[in-house]
Amino acid sequence: MDAASWATRLLRANRESLARWQVQQARVCRLTFAPRGRAFHAGSALWATRTESGVGASHTARSQTSAGLALGLVLAAGLAYGLGTPIRSALAEAPNEPPAKERLIRLHEVHEHNRSSDTYWVFRGDRVYDVTDWVPNHPGGEVILRAVGGSLEPYWNIFTIHQKQDVYDILEQYFIGKIDPRDLVDGKAPTGQVEDPFKNDPERDAALIQHSARPCNSETPESELGSYITPTEKFYVRNHLWVPDVHDADTHRLTIELFDGEEVEYTVADLRKKFKEYSITATLQCSGNRRSHMTQASRPTNGLQWGVGAISTATWTGVRLRDVLADAGVNVQEPDEDIKHLKFVGAEAYGASIPIDKAIDRHGDVLLVYSMNAQPLPRDHGFPLRALVPGHVAARSVKWLSKIVLSDEESTSQWQRRDYKCFGPNVGASHPDWNTAPAIQETPVQSAITAVRQVKADRLEDNNLARVYGLEEDSVVLEGYAFAGGGRHIVRVDVSPDRGRTWMQAQLLENGAKVGASGSPDDHRAWAWKQWRVAVPSTQVSGKFCVKATDDSYNVQPDTFEPTYNFRGNLANAWHRVPVSRDDKPT
Amino acid sequence: MDAASWATRLLRANRESLARWQVQQARVCRLTFAPRGRAFHAGSALWATRTESGVGASHTARSQTSAGLALGLVLAAGLAYGLGTPIRSALAEAPNEPPAKERLIRLHEVHEHNRSSDTYWVFRGDRVYDVTDWVPNHPGGEVILRAVGGSLEPYWNIFTIHQKQDVYDILEQYFIGKIDPRDLVDGKAPTGQVEDPFKNDPERDAALIQHSARPCNSETPESELGSYITPTEKFYVRNHLWVPDVHDADTHRLTIELFDGEEVEYTVADLRKKFKEYSITATLQCSGNRRSHMTQASRPTNGLQWGVGAISTATWTGVRLRDVLADAGVNVQEPDEDIKHLKFVGAEAYGASIPIDKAIDRHGDVLLVYSMNAQPLPRDHGFPLRALVPGHVAARSVKWLSKIVLSDEESTSQWQRRDYKCFGPNVGASHPDWNTAPAIQETPVQSAITAVRQVKADRLEDNNLARVYGLEEDSVVLEGYAFAGGGRHIVRVDVSPDRGRTWMQAQLLENGAKVGASGSPDDHRAWAWKQWRVAVPSTQVSGKFCVKATDDSYNVQPDTFEPTYNFRGNLANAWHRVPVSRDDKPT
Repeated sequence: MDAASWATRLLRANRESLARWQVQQARVCRLTFAPRGRAFHAGSALWATRTESGVGASHTARSQTSAGLALGLVLAAGLAYGLGTPIRSALAEAPNEPPAKERLIRLHEVHEHNRSSDTYWVFRGDRVYDVTDWVPNHPGGEVILRAVGGSLEPYWNIFTIHQKQDVYDILEQYFIGKIDPRDLVDGKAPTGQVEDPFKNDPERDAALIQHSARPCNSETPESELGSYITPTEKFYVRNHLWVPDVHDADTHRLTIELFDGEEVEYTVADLRKKFKEYSITATLQCSGNRRSHMTQASRPTNGLQWGVGAISTATWTGVRLRDVLADAGVNVQEPDEDIKHLKFVGAEAYGASIPIDKAIDRHGDVLLVYSMNAQPLPRDHGFPLRALVPGHVAARSVKWLSKIVLSDEESTSQWQRRDYKCFGPNVGASHPDWNTAPAIQETPVQSAITAVRQVKADRLEDNNLARVYGLEEDSVVLEGYAFAGGGRHIVRVDVSPDRGRTWMQAQLLENGAKVGASGSPDDHRAWAWKQWRVAVPSTQVSGKFCVKATDDSYNVQPDTFEPTYNFRGNLANAWHRVPVSRDDKPT
Repeated sequence: MDAASWATRLLRANRESLARWQVQQARVCRLTFAPRGRAFHAGSALWATRTESGVGASHTARSQTSAGLALGLVLAAGLAYGLGTPIRSALAEAPNEPPAKERLIRLHEVHEHNRSSDTYWVFRGDRVYDVTDWVPNHPGGEVILRAVGGSLEPYWNIFTIHQKQDVYDILEQYFIGKIDPRDLVDGKAPTGQVEDPFKNDPERDAALIQHSARPCNSETPESELGSYITPTEKFYVRNHLWVPDVHDADTHRLTIELFDGEEVEYTVADLRKKFKEYSITATLQCSGNRRSHMTQASRPTNGLQWGVGAISTATWTGVRLRDVLADAGVNVQEPDEDIKHLKFVGAEAYGASIPIDKAIDRHGDVLLVYSMNAQPLPRDHGFPLRALVPGHVAARSVKWLSKIVLSDEESTSQWQRRDYKCFGPNVGASHPDWNTAPAIQETPVQSAITAVRQVKADRLEDNNLARVYGLEEDSVVLEGYAFAGGGRHIVRVDVSPDRGRTWMQAQLLENGAKVGASGSPDDHRAWAWKQWRVAVPSTQVSGKFCVKATDDSYNVQPDTFEPTYNFRGNLANAWHRVPVSRDDKPT
C-alpha cells in the first residue's frame, strides 16, 4: 500500500470523534501554552490551521511507518495553501536577539526526541529545532509528531510550497543547535525519503497559469475568460492535495451515512441508472479569486495569489443530491430537525459541508456530477464523481466524492472551520478566534475586467468590435464577467473610464443558461456568471478603468480593498481597477 | 359613499387589464409626445410614475363626480412620495425666457377645457395652465383629466406635500394666462372642495419625526432605536395613502384569487380559527432609510428624506401565508409553473407583489399578521390584517390587506414597477427605462450609528456604561443597528473611530429572536436586526466615526454614496459616518 493510500485509509478512520477531540485540544492548547515571545504568536497563528484528518490518523496508525510518512504529507498539504505570501508585518515583530552559542547535537539525540519524548526535535540541513511549543499550534495538530525525531526535508521536497523564506523564518524561531559534524555524510545529515503522492497527477494545459505545482493550483488565463463556457482544459484547477488515482468510474462507491449512522452505498453506475439526470451551467469560483488585487492594493495576504482567473464556468451533468438523499431514506420534505449540515468527503481526504437546507432545497440544484461539458469529468475536476453546490464558494463542491454524512455539525475539516473565513481588517494572522467567523458558503457579488481592447478610428472597417458597436471614433472596448453567490442574478454592471468619477452601464450578454421556470431575477437560481462588454470613447478615458456589479438584492462591491482586508485574502471583491495602459492589457 | 370609498371600489374594478393597457400607453406616450424643451423632460420624468388604480378608475367611473375627486386624491398620492427633495439640477436647466404678454382668461373658458376637450387647462390661484402635454407623463395617467377644467388647490390642500416650490416650478412651465379679474371673488377664483380622506387617520406619537402629514410618513427617533423591540407607538410609519377606516376586525375579508380566477374568502376570524398561529420577530425597513445621507453626501434625491429611523422591529403574530394558500387550493409543494408572483392589494388600493417562491417557502416565514407586539395591529400598521414578508423591503409587507392574487406577472402598481428600483449613478430622473431594473425585494446589508455617548474618566463610578465595559479612561460608546435582507445574518460590525483608517469590531448584542431550528448563520432566517455597541478610548478618536456591517454571504456596504447614487435615493447603504461632535449626538 502506498503512502497516499495509507493516508486516505487512515484519515477516514474515526474522523468524526477524533476531530471533535482535536478541536477541544486546540482550545486547551491556546489557553495553556505560554507563548515564546511575539514572534511565536505571529507564527502560531500563521500556521494555526489543522486537519481533522491528520489528528485522526495520528491516533490510529502509531506504528505504521509508511502511514506516518503519508500523514506527514497530509500535514504538509495542510500548510500548502496557507503560505502563499509572506506575512511580513507579523514577522517584522520577531525579536532580533543574537543566537545563543551554537550547540552541537548528535543525530541519535534528535532521533530520541521523537513522539515518545516529552520534547520534540526536527532538523533541516544541519540545523536542529525544538518544535515542542509549536506542536499545539500546528495545522496538522499532533500529526506533526510523526515527523519529529527526524528531518523535515522529505516532506518539504514534495510539498514544495514550503520552500519559501517565510516558512524558514518561522521554523528558525525554534533553532537550538546544529548536527554534530561527525554525523554528517558529505556535509549533510541523512534525511530518508517518502513516496510522492503527486506522481500520478494528470498533465495540465500549458496555458494555465500555475501558482503551485503540488498540489496543483492553476488559474484560467484572461484570454479564455471571455468564453461563456470555459474550455474544459482551461478550467481553473484548485487542488488541496493530490489527485486520487481512481480509474474505474462505474465501480467508484459513494457512501451516504444517515443521521442514525446507517450507511447506504451507490456506485456511479447506480446513480446513473436510478435517478433522473440533470444538467446545469454553473460558475465555480475560488474564495481566493482576485486575492492578488487585495494584496497589491492593501497588505500581504496569506494564500495563493490568484488574479482574475480563479473562476470558470461549465455545464455539469449528474443527479440531484435531493433525489439521492430521498432514495437513501432522508425525509427531504421535513428532515429531522437535528440534521443541520451535510458533509462531503473526497477520496483524497478533503472535507467540507453545506447547510442541510441547501442540500435538500428543490431549487438549490445541488448535483452529484459525473460529466462536465458533456464529457466524463476530468481527473483534475473530480473524476469520477464530484459535488456541485451552485451559488456557494467552490470549496464546497467537493471533488472525488466518496462519502456524504448527515450531521448536526459542520465538517470539522480546516477547510470548513478555518481557512475559508474572513475576519476584520484589524484582525491579524496572529490572533483570530476562528469560531467568530462563519465558513464561507454563498459568495458576495464580484466582477472583473478580463480584456481591454483599443479600437482605432482608422481601422474601423476591419474591426469586428467596431461594427458590433457602430464605433465611429477611437474607442476602448472592455470585457469581463460578473457573478454573485446564492443564485442572485447580476442586474447591473457599472463601468467607469475615469477612476470612478463617472459611470456607464455595460451590456450584459445574453448567454446565461436559464434554469428554473423563468430565469428571472426572482428565481434565485442564477448559477452562472454574466459576461459583459462596453465601448468607451477614448476621449472619455482618464486614469483607471473601474468595474463594479450589483446583484438582485442590490448588494454592491466595496469601493476599495483595505476596509475588507482579511489576512487570508478571501473574497477580494472591491472594484476591479485596471490601468489605462499602452499595451491594451489589463494588469 | 365618500370619496375614499369610491376610489377604493373603483380601483379594484378591472385593475389588471387596465393596468396593462396603461403600461402600453405610457410607452406610446413617451414616443409620440414632443417634449416642450429640456425642462419638460426633467419634469416629466420626475413625475413619471403612475397608478394602475388611477387609470383603471378613469375608465370605469366617467360620470361619478365624487369618484373623480377621490381619484384625484389617488393621483395626488402617487406624487406624494416622489417629491421629497428638489431635483435642483434638472430644474436648473429650465429655459428662463420672459413670459409672453399675459392673457386674461374667463373662468368659463377654463371649465370648457375639461376632459371632453382636446386641450386640458387647470388653474391655481389666478394663474391658468395648459397641461395637455403633461397628461401622458402624469403619475396617475389619464386620471389627471378628472382635475382638468378646474382648480388644483382642493387636491393639493389635502396632499400637502405638493406645496413645494419644486412642484410649483414644474407646473409653471405650462402657464398660459391669468383668470380674468371679473371672475375673481375677493381676489380669488372659486376652487370647490373635496372631502379629506385623511380625516380619519389615527393620532400619532409626538416623538415620531414627521416627514409628511398626508400621507403620514414619520420616522422613529434615534432615542428609540436602541430598543430591540421598537415600542409600538414609536414604530416608524410609512403610508402611501390614507389609513382605511376599518373597524370590525373579525369581519374584514381577505379574498384570494387563484390562478384560474376562482376566489376564496377568509375573514380574519376564519384565519385565527382555521390555522396554526406563529409569531416572528422581524425588522421592517423602508427602501428610503438613510436617503438623507445619500442626498447630503452625493446629490439631491427624489423622495422623503429619511434619517436612520425608517426601520423598526416588532414581534408579529398571525398565520402562515403558505398554510392559507394550501387551504385555498394552491399546491404549495409544486405550484403550477406559470405562477410566478403573488400580489397583495391593500384596502386603500396600495399594491405590491413577491416572488411565489418566497410566498410558499416553508422557511420563508411570510405571515398574514393580525397582532403586533401581542396587541391588535394598530391602524397605522395595517389593522386588521397585513402581510409580513420578512427579509424583503417593507413595501412588500402590504397593510390593510384585502386581496391576494396568484399571477404570472408582478403587480402592475407603480410601487412594484417604478418607485422601488435603483438605477446607476449616471441615470437621471429624466430618462430611466423602468424595465431595466428589478423591483427591490431582498435588501442589501445596512448599518447605522444611533447613539454616541461620551464617558468621562472622572465620572466612571456613576456610569453604567463604564461599569459594563470596564472603562478606565475617557471613552466614547457607540450604539447602533445592522440588518440585511433575505434572512442573511449579520456576522460582523466594524467600527472606525478615525474616518475608516483603523477598525475594531463592535459587540453584537444577543437579543436576536431565533426562529427556525438553529438560529445559526446557515439558516437564512435572520429576520431581525442585530444591535451592537462598542467603546472607543477617546484618544483613538479622530475625524469621523464610521460603521459598516457584513452579512453571512460576506456582502459588505460600499465605502461611499456617490457610486451607488440613484435618483430615487433608494437603498442608501454606504458606511454611516458620524462626526465626532461636542454634543455627543450623531448627526
